[in-house]
Amino acid sequence: MNSTPDKLLFTPGPLTTSATVKEAMLRDLGSRDFEFIALVRDIRRRLVALGEVSEDDYTAILMQGSGTFGLEAVLSSTVAPDGKLLAIVNGAYGRRLVQMARILRIPTLVLETEEDQTPDPAAVDALLAQDPAITHVSLAHCETTSGIINPVDAIGAVVQRHQRIYFVDAMSSFGGMPLNLAACGIDYLVSSANKCIEGVPGFAFILARKRALLATEGYARSLSFDLLGQYRGLEQNGQFRFTPPTHTMLAFHQALLELELEGNVMGRAARYQRNHAVLLAGMRQLGFRTYLPEDKQGYIITAFRYPAHPNFDFTEFYQRLNDRGLAIYPGKTGNADCFRIGHIGRLYPTDMERLLDAIAAVLTEMEIQLVD
Amino acid sequence: MNSTPDKLLFTPGPLTTSATVKEAMLRDLGSRDFEFIALVRDIRRRLVALGEVSEDDYTAILMQGSGTFGLEAVLSSTVAPDGKLLAIVNGAYGRRLVQMARILRIPTLVLETEEDQTPDPAAVDALLAQDPAITHVSLAHCETTSGIINPVDAIGAVVQRHQRIYFVDAMSSFGGMPLNLAACGIDYLVSSANKCIEGVPGFAFILARKRALLATEGYARSLSFDLLGQYRGLEQNGQFRFTPPTHTMLAFHQALLELELEGNVMGRAARYQRNHAVLLAGMRQLGFRTYLPEDKQGYIITAFRYPAHPNFDFTEFYQRLNDRGLAIYPGKTGNADCFRIGHIGRLYPTDMERLLDAIAAVLTEMEIQLVD
Repeated sequence: MNSTPDKLLFTPGPLTTSATVKEAMLRDLGSRDFEFIALVRDIRRRLVALGEVSEDDYTAILMQGSGTFGLEAVLSSTVAPDGKLLAIVNGAYGRRLVQMARILRIPTLVLETEEDQTPDPAAVDALLAQDPAITHVSLAHCETTSGIINPVDAIGAVVQRHQRIYFVDAMSSFGGMPLNLAACGIDYLVSSANKCIEGVPGFAFILARKRALLATEGYARSLSFDLLGQYRGLEQNGQFRFTPPTHTMLAFHQALLELELEGNVMGRAARYQRNHAVLLAGMRQLGFRTYLPEDKQGYIITAFRYPAHPNFDFTEFYQRLNDRGLAIYPGKTGNADCFRIGHIGRLYPTDMERLLDAIAAVLTEMEIQLVD
Repeated sequence: MNSTPDKLLFTPGPLTTSATVKEAMLRDLGSRDFEFIALVRDIRRRLVALGEVSEDDYTAILMQGSGTFGLEAVLSSTVAPDGKLLAIVNGAYGRRLVQMARILRIPTLVLETEEDQTPDPAAVDALLAQDPAITHVSLAHCETTSGIINPVDAIGAVVQRHQRIYFVDAMSSFGGMPLNLAACGIDYLVSSANKCIEGVPGFAFILARKRALLATEGYARSLSFDLLGQYRGLEQNGQFRFTPPTHTMLAFHQALLELELEGNVMGRAARYQRNHAVLLAGMRQLGFRTYLPEDKQGYIITAFRYPAHPNFDFTEFYQRLNDRGLAIYPGKTGNADCFRIGHIGRLYPTDMERLLDAIAAVLTEMEIQLVD
């Protein structure tokens, strides 16, 4: 085992997790063992409850692999052979879904807005009225590219009025932002073990409206990603069709218990909001500007513009923070030079203060002064 | 953490792993961190070496998800749109690949033999001579359904002579049985983290002949399973396209170090062979018969026929062993009532003796006497 503590991860994932979540992995459970089957059952029950819906109407399905695998499971196995997708896009994750649909040969109409703009429900309404061939509408809740929060409820109302299937990528928000699936008209929601629930990476989960899911017989374009098949396996005998990541699921169950201890979604949201508020105030004081206007900014992750100072070099800035044990997230948004700082994972306002102190010190070292 | 030790897993996976492998997961590493990138690089290098080939000709690609996901990655992204598969089948895993090909709409010819018979290279030769449309030939090395060892080298020679692509499912054998990929003419080999290398479940790996892989541009039928895309990501900057299971990979790296300490594949094979020999001798002494004839039986997993005794009830037998902390593997083969006992994972001959003692005690409890 390592003797120096790991870096704190101010990223959208993999995230910093609690010691107890990781310690839950110090076991080898058989995937057909009654103890593991009961654990999976409890995970699924808790996930449906986090979506503020009932197991009469919704079910939770765990899918091996990364979050993207969960998105591909929905896209590749719930769209009929003659189905058509309306993909609402304002960032890299929306574009990735379009790329996925193209590879799966699913006809796709793209409604794209700037990365600092949210989509207009009226535009969605017009497109759905014009094109009755559209069967599915996809939207990211928090588009991690910028941290923008999309109007998942207002667009859901439009989709529901047109009786189309509504598919929400809530990868980086679920469990950290309150969301009622039924109220938003969501048929499929995807998130992953390693986001706001603070497990370790290794599987995705899908919350599905049973009525929609049960109508997808024969649509699967892949054996591994067959969502209905995975659901039926779990319902029949509580087992996975293919080996599940047992250790990762043990960690996730522990993470769900710790989420409950923190006061469920509301408690966790409160901590993330404090993280965000502390960081934002400190960064502004240091002279940084956010990419998004305040009314569109979520508390999951924040994009900051590169400061307009001749000494600023992102690679050096990143590396100096990294040397101090603090990992921020590199990567530009589509139309601006930005870096990102995540507020999720097992991080507290004191960690944000530690990061702010380090950023101040690094700016001094780099001889960058942004404010008088 | 649990206070009672976990059951020993005499299954084909998830397996019992070492404490140090599990403890390697007590860290949170960023997936873009230089330390993680170096770890993945070392994993890939070691995997190619375990295949007894050079990185000039072969590469190792890690794929998130279960072993089946690795198989689907190869099948769905290396077969051309006009490609055709010859699937050699003598068990459930061979049949699963046929099912996968059907869902992917890949034309498939099936050469099926009984589950206690190995395929005949001459039959493969005849089919390839007859049908020039066949581009790929698939075969399981150890078909876990029965534990039979297929002649991966003799069939490889035929496939190579016909210049077709040779795809070997070595899920339950790689790392525990010596195999030279080049000598067997293998273009793609798939195994998983949680088999003979004794990591924990969460990803598959693919050993690919670079020449074959680089010719598959545009063949991918899925974004997540795009093998060439995954390879290019890893080669370009050492990073995964989508979040990798970092903890599982930390465990796997530790497992590879422990494999080396045990004397690499030869050392591990020797332990598994001892496990198998001890168990087989003891089971025979108790009156059990194996499903396979001795010359076809591998040392990975052994199928035993249900004893022909009126008191034998498998569920009760299984449960009584389970109550003693010993998990064997249920499930029939295609044409006979059998149960299976695995010899892989962090198990030693003393564990096999413990299992034998328990089986003897359970038989007595169930009033079953198979020998005088």
